[in-house]
Amino acid sequence: MQWRELPAIYLEDPGSPVQRSSYLIELHTDDGGSYDVVSDASSPAARECCAQQSSARHNWEMNYQEAAIYLQEGENNDKFFTHPKNAKALAAYLFAHNHLFYLMELSTALLLLLLSLCEAPAVPMLRLGIFVHATLELFALIVVVFELSMKMRWLGFQTFIRHKRTMVKTCVLLVQFIEAIVVLVRQTSHVRITRALRCIFLVDCRYCGAVRRNLRQIFQSLPPFIDILLLLLFFMVIFAILGFYLFSPNHSDPYFNTLENSLVNLFVLLTTSNFPDVMMPSYARNPWSCVFFIVYLSIELYFIMNLLLAVVFDTFNDIEKRKFKSLLLHKRTAIQHAYRLLVTKQRPSGISFKHFEGLLRFYKPRMCARERYLTFKALNQSNTPLVSLKDFYNFYEVVGLKWKAKRNREHWFDDLPRTAFLIFKGINILVKSRVFQYTMYTVVAVNGIWILVETFMLQGGNFFSRNVPWSYIVFLTIYGVELLLKTTGLGPVEYLSSGWNLFDFSVTLFAFLGLMALAFNMEPFYFIVVLRPLQLLRLFKLKKRYRNVLDTMFELFPRMASLGLTLLIFYYCFAIVGMEFFAGVVYPNCCNTSTVADSYRWVNHTVGNKTVVEEGYYYLNNFDNILNSFVTLFELTVVNDWYIIMEGVTSQTTHWSRLYFMIFYIVTMVVMTIIVAFILDAFVFRMNYTRKNQDSEEDNGIVLEKEISKEEVIGIIELYKRTSAATETAQLQKIVLQMDKYGQMSTVFLGRRSRTKSDLSMKMYEEEIQEWYEEHSRKEESQTPVQEPASAASSSLKPLSLRQRSQTVI
Amino acid sequence: MQWRELPAIYLEDPGSPVQRSSYLIELHTDDGGSYDVVSDASSPAARECCAQQSSARHNWEMNYQEAAIYLQEGENNDKFFTHPKNAKALAAYLFAHNHLFYLMELSTALLLLLLSLCEAPAVPMLRLGIFVHATLELFALIVVVFELSMKMRWLGFQTFIRHKRTMVKTCVLLVQFIEAIVVLVRQTSHVRITRALRCIFLVDCRYCGAVRRNLRQIFQSLPPFIDILLLLLFFMVIFAILGFYLFSPNHSDPYFNTLENSLVNLFVLLTTSNFPDVMMPSYARNPWSCVFFIVYLSIELYFIMNLLLAVVFDTFNDIEKRKFKSLLLHKRTAIQHAYRLLVTKQRPSGISFKHFEGLLRFYKPRMCARERYLTFKALNQSNTPLVSLKDFYNFYEVVGLKWKAKRNREHWFDDLPRTAFLIFKGINILVKSRVFQYTMYTVVAVNGIWILVETFMLQGGNFFSRNVPWSYIVFLTIYGVELLLKTTGLGPVEYLSSGWNLFDFSVTLFAFLGLMALAFNMEPFYFIVVLRPLQLLRLFKLKKRYRNVLDTMFELFPRMASLGLTLLIFYYCFAIVGMEFFAGVVYPNCCNTSTVADSYRWVNHTVGNKTVVEEGYYYLNNFDNILNSFVTLFELTVVNDWYIIMEGVTSQTTHWSRLYFMIFYIVTMVVMTIIVAFILDAFVFRMNYTRKNQDSEEDNGIVLEKEISKEEVIGIIELYKRTSAATETAQLQKIVLQMDKYGQMSTVFLGRRSRTKSDLSMKMYEEEIQEWYEEHSRKEESQTPVQEPASAASSSLKPLSLRQRSQTVI
Repeated sequence: MQWRELPAIYLEDPGSPVQRSSYLIELHTDDGGSYDVVSDASSPAARECCAQQSSARHNWEMNYQEAAIYLQEGENNDKFFTHPKNAKALAAYLFAHNHLFYLMELSTALLLLLLSLCEAPAVPMLRLGIFVHATLELFALIVVVFELSMKMRWLGFQTFIRHKRTMVKTCVLLVQFIEAIVVLVRQTSHVRITRALRCIFLVDCRYCGAVRRNLRQIFQSLPPFIDILLLLLFFMVIFAILGFYLFSPNHSDPYFNTLENSLVNLFVLLTTSNFPDVMMPSYARNPWSCVFFIVYLSIELYFIMNLLLAVVFDTFNDIEKRKFKSLLLHKRTAIQHAYRLLVTKQRPSGISFKHFEGLLRFYKPRMCARERYLTFKALNQSNTPLVSLKDFYNFYEVVGLKWKAKRNREHWFDDLPRTAFLIFKGINILVKSRVFQYTMYTVVAVNGIWILVETFMLQGGNFFSRNVPWSYIVFLTIYGVELLLKTTGLGPVEYLSSGWNLFDFSVTLFAFLGLMALAFNMEPFYFIVVLRPLQLLRLFKLKKRYRNVLDTMFELFPRMASLGLTLLIFYYCFAIVGMEFFAGVVYPNCCNTSTVADSYRWVNHTVGNKTVVEEGYYYLNNFDNILNSFVTLFELTVVNDWYIIMEGVTSQTTHWSRLYFMIFYIVTMVVMTIIVAFILDAFVFRMNYTRKNQDSEEDNGIVLEKEISKEEVIGIIELYKRTSAATETAQLQKIVLQMDKYGQMSTVFLGRRSRTKSDLSMKMYEEEIQEWYEEHSRKEESQTPVQEPASAASSSLKPLSLRQRSQTVI
Repeated sequence: MQWRELPAIYLEDPGSPVQRSSYLIELHTDDGGSYDVVSDASSPAARECCAQQSSARHNWEMNYQEAAIYLQEGENNDKFFTHPKNAKALAAYLFAHNHLFYLMELSTALLLLLLSLCEAPAVPMLRLGIFVHATLELFALIVVVFELSMKMRWLGFQTFIRHKRTMVKTCVLLVQFIEAIVVLVRQTSHVRITRALRCIFLVDCRYCGAVRRNLRQIFQSLPPFIDILLLLLFFMVIFAILGFYLFSPNHSDPYFNTLENSLVNLFVLLTTSNFPDVMMPSYARNPWSCVFFIVYLSIELYFIMNLLLAVVFDTFNDIEKRKFKSLLLHKRTAIQHAYRLLVTKQRPSGISFKHFEGLLRFYKPRMCARERYLTFKALNQSNTPLVSLKDFYNFYEVVGLKWKAKRNREHWFDDLPRTAFLIFKGINILVKSRVFQYTMYTVVAVNGIWILVETFMLQGGNFFSRNVPWSYIVFLTIYGVELLLKTTGLGPVEYLSSGWNLFDFSVTLFAFLGLMALAFNMEPFYFIVVLRPLQLLRLFKLKKRYRNVLDTMFELFPRMASLGLTLLIFYYCFAIVGMEFFAGVVYPNCCNTSTVADSYRWVNHTVGNKTVVEEGYYYLNNFDNILNSFVTLFELTVVNDWYIIMEGVTSQTTHWSRLYFMIFYIVTMVVMTIIVAFILDAFVFRMNYTRKNQDSEEDNGIVLEKEISKEEVIGIIELYKRTSAATETAQLQKIVLQMDKYGQMSTVFLGRRSRTKSDLSMKMYEEEIQEWYEEHSRKEESQTPVQEPASAASSSLKPLSLRQRSQTVI
């Protein structure tokens, strides 16, 4: 009701900003103190003064921009002390904060990393001349220099120097630069283990924020981890001494003949990698010696290793919660800053749509006019035309919603003629029926068993006969019919909006492509045929637990990917070091004098009239180029039989090489433990959440509903017309036309977005969050935030309560 | 204040019980309805009636006993439907519920289990004739029959039949009986895999309650576990088909040549046991085939296996909490039952000391009079001489306390003459000083490094030279002096009351014994010398986290032991099955045609003039007797290289043997996952607890303080005199004498016990517990408990509120 009468009021709001943008402060003081002349533009006198009005508009634009920057900083968890402090810095900030720049950052970093494919020891196919790759490297480094100079311009020298990550990057850059020039001059590569540091360029990328967070989390989990690790190593030393005393008198036992061997073998035993073997010589002599190994494994493997997981899991939990809290409060502060820049002197109690729209123009340039208005309306909980600070706190939750007009029609075929409608309605009912679904499940199950039996019948040989098997065609037809029925019954849009249907669709498509490949005899695509069993995955829709697990899996995927990337970064460092030290060290028959000779043997001998090749294959696990190194490192991560690789390399180099392998094991143990802790935490959290919210469990996303009346739309059109924004006006006109067509006075829009971990956390910690807020605002009231530098921008960072008190004075 | 005046009142309380024991009800109805004659004994008329009074006393004794039984049932989590229902049942109950009977149960069960050491295939040294071991078995089984008949007598036939565990036990007993007789008659052992069921006799023992709980928890965790397991197996099948199609064209790849091989090898790969090997042939042909293995391992090992842990952990958490809740409510009900049997008609608001003392005489016969009174006083929170129901609810927490008079002296040497006092005081201050402690830590660290260096210098040979190394003597002297100083400074009692000091003491003692062994050249004790590095464990006192970890470890120890025992029970079952099928199957050079021939090879060939023995040793991992089987099963649990054992056995039997190994793997995976979940849960719980109670973290036990005045003691003596309990009177007299000696009017007593998991849970779930109680009492009010059978005992199970209302009517 009240909305209808208000549009005129809240759409035009030419009041000057209460708080001028900090850039403006600088600009105006530069201009010689014209700071106070910007008077209230809504007074008649001011309206006449055209120049002043444009200046006020300019001020507003600056305010919008700064507010948008604050909100971005809040979202990206950038600290406010890196907030651009003047117009020059702002320009640099804007230059350095767009996707083009980010992409440049990323591609330079990737280029630098990929160079190791071509540098000696290179992957054979990708080998480049020293001149070529050194030049490429220099080029990439120069780009990094450019990026850093932009950053310096934006941050200012003082802040730049205080920013640790940037300083480390600068140092690494310097070292790399010198080394690249040395390589270019000497025309030969020296031992460049510093190449391992190239990762920092990737880590520093804007797009790799998640990786940075992971690394921080890993480092934060380290202290308790190291404590328990020491306990582990301590017991290892005690047992090594004990084992040495007990088993070294047995001369047929090569595992404990020196203290060093004893230590190394117990370290390997910790990974169980040499287990029954290490016990066997002593066990053969005295059966009771197995007690030593059982006790060792029980203490080290089954107790302390699990303790390690428990400690990391606990720390992880704690860190996750603290991180969530600090991020939440950071966002809140950002919102407060932005809010202060958007309220006017006349109406200090909230933000009008005009200013909100101005903010969104900078914050999300791609958003259309309708969405801006809907976002504003979704935020506004009160009946006034202003968004109060309390409402504005929901900014981040609301701004991500995608808005769509709510369909009036239930099905896509509602508008069709009667007969067609009935047919489609029938299909719709059929498709949605339980019988249909369970029939399909049965078909899939039968298909699965069929494939299994079929494969079991084949015994090697050429599987891909020219004739397409008839079972393939039958099942594919059934799936095709199902797909057709579902698409027509539900409508293509609704059909494809479900992830499961999308999966069905793509698997059926693949199967069809496979059929084509078979029919037209396109050999390279045969592998598609092999993917048929994936159909069976559909069966997991049947049980709620699987749906839950798979949903959680998809929710976790981004985080998992970033953890994987973090692991890859560690791999890269170790691969570079490994290549520098161990390239070309391992080859067939290299280690015939070592204890693991068998695994490296390659013998080509003739038995009768046949050539028998006896291959140990382990020489393939080498550090000869970066791809091989990655595979070798993966094998070391899996841990089984890693000591064969270690001993092979050790026998060809010094026994200090073991240090490399042991350190790698410990590092991967840390990362893997974190990954396990993460999966544990995520699933336990999710299950707790499901248990807590039994009812709302079905909807998998955030949905908001808002109604807009025609009058409101027309009001906004008026507003846009005044600012002569043609595209926006046209967009909105379309809505009015649509409404006219259906004779409606209002349209309902639905805002949707998928649920994030943050949403879940919000709900889980609901009660605690209120406490945090109170504590936070209490702290703010009692003192000015610490992170804030004493610069021009500081005025905009003043606590809100103080600010509002001062307004009454002005 | 009030206490002083009251003794006379609350010590004598000859009132008749409000609620007669249910056995009495039966007795009296047997006597022909004399049920109602027991009138109020405190009326003058009744006092004259001596016969009636003794009958009242008899009634009270019965009530005490039944209340004690209720409390025992509450403590042991015995369901109330097994409560003895009449005097005959009571006799059987009492017979079957004492440590002698429990020990008999346990030893019979152990005897039955240990028989498998002597039955064919027996451990060579322990082999017994068939006649001997079959007779032994029959004897043990007859004892079990006797136990079961006692149980039947106590439970009654109806309840006996409804009790599942007992019924299963009976069936197993029957089968075992028949088989034992068959063996005895045929004089030869047949395939007796039913011997695996002997475990049930152990599981059913009273002392193995923890194992039963573990098993229940494992079975409760199974459904979600199996769900995820299916997901795991499903992906395995898909990848097996895929692997078969991709790699079987490669003829040098033995791992994927048939679908069965493909499946088995992917199953083994899940345990990483064959990892780089299974990849090598295909990797050698095409480097990109590693992607298949990396994807498989990432999905199966790093994702789904962790998911398994997450699901089990979550279920485990949930079950733990529910278990704690039900146990808590069960105890509460037990207390209510007991309470109702102890209040009198005259004073329905509480239990007087006389009755409480009567209860404790049955509940804890070993408790002395002083402790009974202190327990009563600790329970009594009000100023009245009666313990109300609300106070009585704390029964279980208080009854476990050990009471000791609080020392008035601070140090043990306070009574010594001035000079001696000053000396000891000086030692005391020295011993407690930080400098002393850190000096000792330094000494220990130096000792540790010394040992390490010393051992490193030795390179095999005879370590135990006749000369005792001087370093040993030096360090031992330092430890000896430390021990002496600490004992004298703190007093022996205080010194040994700390676990850490106890540890120091025993390690030093061991070192001394080692020295003796060296000095007097007693070879078999040399191993003690090797234990010296254990001294280093003292260093872990330095850091709070280690103290925490070790404390938690000790708290967890009983639970860990019971989990270990559970695992052993599974081992036993599998060992029996393994022995029946695979005994004698594996021997040196047995598997020369299989793929794992090398590991079983035993060649004795001559190179030059030296005999070189090439041993594969794996033939030692066999099922030839139960001890060997256990070691083999442990090796299978550790998982590394388990496929060598599997393939060895498979090559000698059928390929169905693999099923045995695979099932064993899955079973140990379940148990191990539960163990990991348990450790995780316990530590995370403990750490959360520590975080929540930062302040009270130092005291590691429950302590309660109570003061007793002389008058009170004299009052109790009076009471005991009347019941002519001489020992109790003498005990109490001693306290009075002590008080007189020191001229005190009262003494303070300290009650102490160690903290249990239940105490921690109580504090953690503080808020929820109140809710549970309310919910529980609401449920009780609305309905009579379901578990209660419609027998004579039912009257005593009526909800309290109803009972108290009916009292006003009487």
